[in-house]
Amino acid sequence: MKPPGQDEFETPSAPANVPAGELNSSPCPDPSPGGPSDTDSKELRVPRDPLLFIQLNELLSWPHAVEWRETGRWVLFEEKLEVGANRWSIPHVPTLALPSLQKLRSLLAEGLVLLDCPAQNLLELVEQVTRVELLSPELRQQLQALLLQRPQHHIRTIGTRPCWGSSHSRETSHDEEDPLKEQHQNPLREKLPPEAEAGVVLAGELGFLAQPLGAFVRLRDPVVLGPLTEVPLPSRFFCLLLGPPMPGTGYHEMGRAVAVLLSDPQFQWSVRRVRNLHDLLTALDTFLQEVTVLPPGRWDPTARIPPPKCLPSQHKRPLSQLQEAKGPPDPHGPPAENRHSYGPYSPSLELQRTGRLFGGLVQDVHRKASWYPSDFLDALHPQCFSAVLYIYLATITNAITFGGLLGDATEGAQGLLESFLGTAVAGAAFCLMAGQPLTILSSTGPVLVFERLLFSFCRDHNLDYLPFRLWVGIWVATFCLVLVATEASVLVRYFTRFTEEGFCALISLIFIYDAMGKMLSLAHAYPIQRPASALARTPAYGCLCQFPGLGGNESQRTRMRPKDMDDILSMDLGLINASLLPPPECVQRGGYPRGPGCHTVPDIAFFSLLLFLTSFLFATALKHVKTSRFFPSVVRKALGDFSSVLAILLGCGLDAFLGLATPKLVVPREFKPTLTGRGWLVSPFGANPWWLSMAAALPALFLSILIFMDQQITAVILNRAEYRLQKGAGFHLDLFCVAVLMLLTSALGLPWYVSATVISLAHMDSLRKESRACAPGEPPRFLGIREQRLTGLVVFILTGVSIFLAPVLKFIPMPVLYGIFLYMGVAALNSIQFTKRVQLLLMPAKHQPDLLLLRHVPLNRVHLFTTIQLACLGLLWTIKSTPAAIIFPLMLLSLVGVRKALEWVFSQQELLWLDELMAEEGKSIPEKRLDPEHSFSGSDNEDSELMYQPKAPEINISVN
Amino acid sequence: MKPPGQDEFETPSAPANVPAGELNSSPCPDPSPGGPSDTDSKELRVPRDPLLFIQLNELLSWPHAVEWRETGRWVLFEEKLEVGANRWSIPHVPTLALPSLQKLRSLLAEGLVLLDCPAQNLLELVEQVTRVELLSPELRQQLQALLLQRPQHHIRTIGTRPCWGSSHSRETSHDEEDPLKEQHQNPLREKLPPEAEAGVVLAGELGFLAQPLGAFVRLRDPVVLGPLTEVPLPSRFFCLLLGPPMPGTGYHEMGRAVAVLLSDPQFQWSVRRVRNLHDLLTALDTFLQEVTVLPPGRWDPTARIPPPKCLPSQHKRPLSQLQEAKGPPDPHGPPAENRHSYGPYSPSLELQRTGRLFGGLVQDVHRKASWYPSDFLDALHPQCFSAVLYIYLATITNAITFGGLLGDATEGAQGLLESFLGTAVAGAAFCLMAGQPLTILSSTGPVLVFERLLFSFCRDHNLDYLPFRLWVGIWVATFCLVLVATEASVLVRYFTRFTEEGFCALISLIFIYDAMGKMLSLAHAYPIQRPASALARTPAYGCLCQFPGLGGNESQRTRMRPKDMDDILSMDLGLINASLLPPPECVQRGGYPRGPGCHTVPDIAFFSLLLFLTSFLFATALKHVKTSRFFPSVVRKALGDFSSVLAILLGCGLDAFLGLATPKLVVPREFKPTLTGRGWLVSPFGANPWWLSMAAALPALFLSILIFMDQQITAVILNRAEYRLQKGAGFHLDLFCVAVLMLLTSALGLPWYVSATVISLAHMDSLRKESRACAPGEPPRFLGIREQRLTGLVVFILTGVSIFLAPVLKFIPMPVLYGIFLYMGVAALNSIQFTKRVQLLLMPAKHQPDLLLLRHVPLNRVHLFTTIQLACLGLLWTIKSTPAAIIFPLMLLSLVGVRKALEWVFSQQELLWLDELMAEEGKSIPEKRLDPEHSFSGSDNEDSELMYQPKAPEINISVN
Repeated sequence: MKPPGQDEFETPSAPANVPAGELNSSPCPDPSPGGPSDTDSKELRVPRDPLLFIQLNELLSWPHAVEWRETGRWVLFEEKLEVGANRWSIPHVPTLALPSLQKLRSLLAEGLVLLDCPAQNLLELVEQVTRVELLSPELRQQLQALLLQRPQHHIRTIGTRPCWGSSHSRETSHDEEDPLKEQHQNPLREKLPPEAEAGVVLAGELGFLAQPLGAFVRLRDPVVLGPLTEVPLPSRFFCLLLGPPMPGTGYHEMGRAVAVLLSDPQFQWSVRRVRNLHDLLTALDTFLQEVTVLPPGRWDPTARIPPPKCLPSQHKRPLSQLQEAKGPPDPHGPPAENRHSYGPYSPSLELQRTGRLFGGLVQDVHRKASWYPSDFLDALHPQCFSAVLYIYLATITNAITFGGLLGDATEGAQGLLESFLGTAVAGAAFCLMAGQPLTILSSTGPVLVFERLLFSFCRDHNLDYLPFRLWVGIWVATFCLVLVATEASVLVRYFTRFTEEGFCALISLIFIYDAMGKMLSLAHAYPIQRPASALARTPAYGCLCQFPGLGGNESQRTRMRPKDMDDILSMDLGLINASLLPPPECVQRGGYPRGPGCHTVPDIAFFSLLLFLTSFLFATALKHVKTSRFFPSVVRKALGDFSSVLAILLGCGLDAFLGLATPKLVVPREFKPTLTGRGWLVSPFGANPWWLSMAAALPALFLSILIFMDQQITAVILNRAEYRLQKGAGFHLDLFCVAVLMLLTSALGLPWYVSATVISLAHMDSLRKESRACAPGEPPRFLGIREQRLTGLVVFILTGVSIFLAPVLKFIPMPVLYGIFLYMGVAALNSIQFTKRVQLLLMPAKHQPDLLLLRHVPLNRVHLFTTIQLACLGLLWTIKSTPAAIIFPLMLLSLVGVRKALEWVFSQQELLWLDELMAEEGKSIPEKRLDPEHSFSGSDNEDSELMYQPKAPEINISVN
Repeated sequence: MKPPGQDEFETPSAPANVPAGELNSSPCPDPSPGGPSDTDSKELRVPRDPLLFIQLNELLSWPHAVEWRETGRWVLFEEKLEVGANRWSIPHVPTLALPSLQKLRSLLAEGLVLLDCPAQNLLELVEQVTRVELLSPELRQQLQALLLQRPQHHIRTIGTRPCWGSSHSRETSHDEEDPLKEQHQNPLREKLPPEAEAGVVLAGELGFLAQPLGAFVRLRDPVVLGPLTEVPLPSRFFCLLLGPPMPGTGYHEMGRAVAVLLSDPQFQWSVRRVRNLHDLLTALDTFLQEVTVLPPGRWDPTARIPPPKCLPSQHKRPLSQLQEAKGPPDPHGPPAENRHSYGPYSPSLELQRTGRLFGGLVQDVHRKASWYPSDFLDALHPQCFSAVLYIYLATITNAITFGGLLGDATEGAQGLLESFLGTAVAGAAFCLMAGQPLTILSSTGPVLVFERLLFSFCRDHNLDYLPFRLWVGIWVATFCLVLVATEASVLVRYFTRFTEEGFCALISLIFIYDAMGKMLSLAHAYPIQRPASALARTPAYGCLCQFPGLGGNESQRTRMRPKDMDDILSMDLGLINASLLPPPECVQRGGYPRGPGCHTVPDIAFFSLLLFLTSFLFATALKHVKTSRFFPSVVRKALGDFSSVLAILLGCGLDAFLGLATPKLVVPREFKPTLTGRGWLVSPFGANPWWLSMAAALPALFLSILIFMDQQITAVILNRAEYRLQKGAGFHLDLFCVAVLMLLTSALGLPWYVSATVISLAHMDSLRKESRACAPGEPPRFLGIREQRLTGLVVFILTGVSIFLAPVLKFIPMPVLYGIFLYMGVAALNSIQFTKRVQLLLMPAKHQPDLLLLRHVPLNRVHLFTTIQLACLGLLWTIKSTPAAIIFPLMLLSLVGVRKALEWVFSQQELLWLDELMAEEGKSIPEKRLDPEHSFSGSDNEDSELMYQPKAPEINISVN
């Protein structure tokens, strides 16, 4: 028989937000009211032991009287009442003193243990519990009165006033046993699932008792014990620990020990099933066998340990005797066959070759067709509205930035209008047709880089750009169709992290380099006026507005109002045919600006640099707000999510405030292609010779490689097991759609589009289903993603409508966009493990973080791997800077070969930690932990599961 | 009898760098070779149990043979061998499984325990250990051979090659028992004190044994056991845990358990003294009674806990039976009367009123006189050289910044020369005469603010500044002498954190405000040229160089070379008497710049802003490098320490690179006062009426308050107990010196000087004596400070010489200094607890850090206190902004009254946590932990000692 909890999620690299296996914490139910998207939660709804809320009420001796007060509570972690501060402590991992557990054991062994007690209310329970021999009738009555006294709870209501429960002593009348108002108002109640049960521990010193009194009760049917608990939950367990004052470990610590025991998943499982005292003590002993012990000389027992990010997996724990005895069929655990499976389809299945032409595509279409209706019905949830807002803003930010850059790169052959229109058309079409509707189609970094290279080539060789581009697009579509037909997508399995990181790092560096380069070119366009140095020639300075000579057009001269101050000055200076008008005014009035200073616009260069730095730093800072302690989480999330938008707004505000003539985004004035003189359809030849349409096959080959890599790496990342997609992916179908859209966008002269990793991940993230009812200290549980086509569709329709935003967009200064561009590059570079390893090169071994990687691979091997990656990157960069730049996609692909060659340099074990193993035909990818090189007795389990970082979500591959 | 270690440092608020009580870890001796400054280390050299290095050698079954390998080691914390990575793990708190301790106990109970074994070498020891009944002669021989086999150690040498010890099996020849070369080369050896001893644990599974074999040996005389340990230390303990393979907890875990036990201070103390097996088991049981237990369901036993900043104090631990039995006179603990005393004098003693006129001053002089010779001899240590370099750079940075600002504030009445000269003269004199020679005298923020107010007053009322200032200085000196005579320094006890924080916050805000203001004023001085907007009038533009008319001085006209390009242009433009020369050139050639554009210097405003931001951000970033993981600690420390200097250098480099005409620091051209026309001595009246010398008494009164507060708050901070000064302070003597120097600097027209907190703390920090030999994971121990007068003296002599640096300093742009100014203000503001509490206002309760303060004071009370502080600050700011600004010192002093009034609003308990208690005559200041409001059984010790943050070093009071 499996112990409970063993069966849940057994991935070796569980993401941080998916606690690996939580026992008995009843699955936090989905907040949605059973909508159609909840098909996946069935599996999680297998009946199980309910969640247990445990409360410790202590008997406190006040100057006047004794009274009960709640001093601790447990669901997963411990919360202690800070009496002075009148608040609950931060949830923390409970720690116990060993003697308190031992004393508890002996007290229980001698005390009263009532299993399946039939008491129906507190009065009956108290009577049962006090029916012990050692109490005289008077004592018993006194004790009963004490136990029926209403305890004081600390309930954190929304207001700030201290909210102790009323302390008037409660008589034994039954009508007061109804849950109190304050209990119902307790916000904790909403955090606990409705089926949760309570356990109450009462502990304290009682002078009139001659010897300790211990009682442990498991109620047959859980009942609400009046105001005993701060939340009106039915109680299942009741434990009483009273006695005369004793030295050393007191009743407080024993009470905590019971509470901690009850909050332990395995002990709780056992104690719900024990049949007698012996079983109970055995369960306690099993617990003791598993505790972790901290030595007193090195650990202060009063230090509080914050909750671990990921609870320890329960399946590693040995079985208790009771569990062993109970035999295999455990009615309370989820069926064993559900282990490992997150959804009905696994991406690796979809990456099996069928062997038939277009076999993969046909399979994809069949599979997705069955989900098609639900892809629209599943969108009926309020969460989808906020997702639309968020993704819409991200998409138009993207469209604006890339549109602006594309306008720059193609010198106006394409521009903002094409960017908006293309995004809307291609995006919407993809959402309707593609295999993975959560993917957001976008212009991505690599494609933009390629487009720029292509344009430079055409410009340098005096070719007509758009017609040539059309042929490239036609060829790419053809190649992609071939790739779909031959099911080439299965080759994705050879893309390891090494390839992904090389791809991402190169593109990020290009982004950073380009952003900086564009800023420098602004400094050239708006040169800085340096003062004359002692050695240099006297500099050129000044500018006059010269009007045509006296014999020229007199009418223009007379048109000027002679009262202008500068004209008076001009006359004063003896100027006849000239004026001190600024160049734009001068031209307007028919003059010619003359003089060396006419072409310099002061202040623009530095102000642009300021805007650039401001938008970069502000976006970066806002991103960090998301993980800071400040502001409520809603505000934090909004600031972090909309960091780019807010940074652009700030930049525009600054620019508008100073009103300088910074270069602005070029926006279309009317709805027609940016390139003047062309219709919407690109002419197939233009001024180009016919054979160029054939020659376009060569760059198209490179672009196909790029598109294939960009598209498929994104698809693999989005379909990772940790996102628990239910409806599966569609690698072949997606590539097919990309090919078709390639054709369409090339014909219309729109930008090219592929799936964008970051924005697609953001899309999925905004559609997360999470458990709402969560224990204090526990991160919310991830339940899945609302897979549907509607959010994406609405986003792209809105983007299409946003073409009419153009009059607003013309206020965006270009330096702000460059700043956002830099931010994207830096963020993408920071997201990959490669960057962390490069940083390791700069850290002394002593200060390196305790990475799992460093525990298993010698440092010099790690450095060697990093250096090889750096060398590959350097080579790629060099190629990119030569005239052969256009072949860089081929070089990117050759990273796969380099990775294969690395197998001769590094052992499989090392590559497993540094990268991942490459797929081999017929072999399944091994789990992360191979057999250790040398077998150590007992040291197999040394790697903390807490250290099993989720494989860094290598998002940002296609920086967007 | 006290348990060992209980006696060391029992301060309730121990600073983080002083571990509160470390038992048995022999004090890391001072690296200095017994120099005269080591007078204080006597107390720490009381003979004690030597440090124990524990090593676990495991028997590993390789494919070919079995061999021993070192897999763990312990001094204070555990280091585990990462077999895959071939490196030692990060030191961490060891954790054990409870069963391993229990199994160990039963193995020891049945096994061989040899106490005070007389073995002289490994061979003898092995023979003794294997002389057990259960072994047959052949088995014994086999076992002996195995035990004599040389183990493999992982020794981390300087190179990067993996350094496994040679693995050829060692025969029983005696000559090989000498320590091996690799053992001697082990860098760990230098970390351990020479008197350290070793404990060796051998553990492993051995197939040929029928039943477990456990042996524990305490050697009578510690002997070097050949190559058994990685460091050639004499071994005191030897433990053997071998046996047939067994299920569950193996020998590896048992071996770790022995090692962890031996590394526990209290167990180690006991095991050195146990007389029989029973005692040993009792010691183990005592250990078990004290362990902290983590529940298996909430804590992954394989997680590694980083070493706590501060080890738990041992005095809280209960006494073992053995300790109780041994009786009071413990020869191994330091004498009990040394508890609590850091040096012969305590600042609070010095703050007792003698009741005689100048009584405190006389006392101070007497006390300091006795130390005077040693104040020079104690400086003979290389550390003092680096301290001089560091403090010299900090001092001139300070002198430059404040000199520049003073020049700004007094419009040239004082300047850089005065700043350098005054710093040198006043600083050196103070170092020679003052009571606390570690204090660095400097121009501080509050005084600078006051000086600026004084100057504005004089300027507005057409008074002669320096003569008036002289009288203010004379009056201040008089008032200060009165304060010295009346021993007013004892009033310092009424300055609580509330007052200090108010002082610091106001000054920091003034710094920040001023830095920003100065940048804005630059933008006014160098206006930005905005383009014409549609609505505004056509802007002024252009500038011509007009020469005197035709009838004017013809010689000047002819002096111009007619080949200049701009002149050709001018002629081309029809200019006769004008040219397009830039204004400076124009003036140089005798022309007059005419036109609206002549006064605008483009680009300067934005470039200044860039320099300002760059120096601020760079200094801030460098400060953070100090606590980052990057770079070796020497580099990190250098970057952090010299952050201001480096930021200034970067700013200068940027400025020089672009060569723009940014405003630069005004430097003296020759050695004479900055104000033209005055001699070195300020005339006592100047143009002022005589009665002004009397009227100067009023501002002098305010300045006296300011000087007194600034000087004494700094003195109190520097003399805090945690710095363990041996030679005591001199509150009265210091104030006397300040008064005398006030007179001197006023007469010479130099800036005014008081003690500066930050730079003085930096001075002390650079003279820290720390233990060098430290266990892995243990922070170095703080031993004291090299108190002497020489470093300060040399620093100020160097500063005086630096007056001749002026030709270099003229390249420093003012915006860079403003940036450093901003950085100082922000850093000072960030250093106070008040800022942290203001931040709490922005944090939801859930995300607040686990501050001790928040555990004891209700959140709304904390917020109320913060709000009151904010209100006080707002009021102070308002006053500072009115014409009555000059009385702001009085308002600062009134904070003491506000604080007193707060006692009606907050309970003593709350004030204790939020501030500190005010001294009351005849009452000693109570310890931090008052009686808890309500007595909880067993919960008294809940506040972790780890949480006892040192009282935030509220440095930066006088921002400098």
